[in-house]
Amino acid sequence: MPDIIDGNQISKDIIEELTIEVSKLLDSKPKVVFVRVGEDPASVSYVNKKQKVSAQIGIESVLLVLDVSISQQELIAQIRKLNEDPEVNGILIQSPLPSHMIETEVFNSVAPEKDVDGFNVVNVGKLCQEDESGFVACTPAGIIELLKRQNIVVEGKHVVVVGRSLIVGKPAGLLLVKKSKIGNATVTFCHSRTQEIASIAKQADILIAAIGKPNFIDATMVKKGAVVIDVGINRVEDGSKKSGFRLVGDVDFEAVQSKVSAITPVPGGVGPMTVAMLMKNTIKAYRLSHK
Amino acid sequence: MPDIIDGNQISKDIIEELTIEVSKLLDSKPKVVFVRVGEDPASVSYVNKKQKVSAQIGIESVLLVLDVSISQQELIAQIRKLNEDPEVNGILIQSPLPSHMIETEVFNSVAPEKDVDGFNVVNVGKLCQEDESGFVACTPAGIIELLKRQNIVVEGKHVVVVGRSLIVGKPAGLLLVKKSKIGNATVTFCHSRTQEIASIAKQADILIAAIGKPNFIDATMVKKGAVVIDVGINRVEDGSKKSGFRLVGDVDFEAVQSKVSAITPVPGGVGPMTVAMLMKNTIKAYRLSHK
Repeated sequence: MPDIIDGNQISKDIIEELTIEVSKLLDSKPKVVFVRVGEDPASVSYVNKKQKVSAQIGIESVLLVLDVSISQQELIAQIRKLNEDPEVNGILIQSPLPSHMIETEVFNSVAPEKDVDGFNVVNVGKLCQEDESGFVACTPAGIIELLKRQNIVVEGKHVVVVGRSLIVGKPAGLLLVKKSKIGNATVTFCHSRTQEIASIAKQADILIAAIGKPNFIDATMVKKGAVVIDVGINRVEDGSKKSGFRLVGDVDFEAVQSKVSAITPVPGGVGPMTVAMLMKNTIKAYRLSHK
Repeated sequence: MPDIIDGNQISKDIIEELTIEVSKLLDSKPKVVFVRVGEDPASVSYVNKKQKVSAQIGIESVLLVLDVSISQQELIAQIRKLNEDPEVNGILIQSPLPSHMIETEVFNSVAPEKDVDGFNVVNVGKLCQEDESGFVACTPAGIIELLKRQNIVVEGKHVVVVGRSLIVGKPAGLLLVKKSKIGNATVTFCHSRTQEIASIAKQADILIAAIGKPNFIDATMVKKGAVVIDVGINRVEDGSKKSGFRLVGDVDFEAVQSKVSAITPVPGGVGPMTVAMLMKNTIKAYRLSHK
């Protein structure tokens, strides 16, 4: 049986380490502002979770809720105020934003040094330039941390990333190709336009699935002994559940588990890492502002 | 025999098109400033070539030569003056810079909207985010233009990039994976740490060699019918030449030419495209500032 990579436990370990780190900060504590526009239920739930973990670690958090009808210009004006507030170390704009806004324009208005989500164009450029002073988006950063803490060798291996999104696929691949120990991999980006995706995925020593299609990766697409990181979180109907649905990843876990050497479950794999990395970024932002 | 991709002719065509475009600008002409620090002979020669082509197109160019002993701080102060000068549309800092400087810091001091070399972190981030308003580094932009004008189908093809440099390999791969017609490729990044590089390179429908090792790519590494783009410019000793050396690419041209469907020669392939794309970026900067 493969190693099941326990994202819940690993994120718990990180949160404990960060709690100790913050307890040693004597003169002040890190402060993060969460900005939520509207009442999207998933966003409400995500932001609640982030606030809860902040409190647990000793990070001060503030929730700024804005009406869904706010204009992009007004939202950016609010963000600029937070940029200028020396008490605020980190700013997170919860996505998705209302459809009348252009998300990248909003994200790019967050000061790069407070951009704990790593979505600002300057932080994306720093990631590409291998400049460690920037902030890396939390999900790809969480993938790296999982590989590291699971002692998975990355150097020289062939990583295949299925999906080329700006917030997961691309940054994950860029992190894994860069010159560093949890890096130096050969990286292939596959996506919806890739021909013969199965034969390419099957070459992967480490396969990262971030395509957003339930159970897309089946046993024919996975090499024996591969490590599989499943970033997908998809709702599929399930009459046996009270909610009427269950969560599944982009990987058909049942079908591939007997073939692989290690795999992340969904839920409980990459998911919990995202909040932990957000907290890590917030403490980094605090340290940058106190240098 | 394969198609020999004639970079000299293609760049000449582009320069002619740009000359017509600039001739139609009636109220003013684009202006670019070349900054050269020291007297490195290759830099002198490159900047001369860039000035000559600027003049040919009708772009005004100014050469600012600074002493090799100038501090990084003083250089950045000079760049800031150019950033603020409304008459200046484009700024190019000729590399390599003296060893007492950190090149990325200098490049990042050029205003993103005048960064015709595409090295500023904001432009690197925009490339990654697929934001067309940015400037793309001239060599990777030249590769895309060669593929486009040679009518080579890129969508859905497997591109293997050998080399992960910040100014060629990475941006070339990012351009080819992005959602666009000369894009949508499956992209693999190989490099010095890649295991079994030959078997991966041999899968390429389009192979981009940017590793800086003379004749590194031999016939065993190339698939029959592949398109080969050779970015390397390496000096190798040659007693039969007056100069004592000749230029060769990263690809063993003689060995692979009978196998491939199309290939760029060295010299006369990618090389001449770089200056043409610099001119194109300068005109883009001019248009952005006149919007």
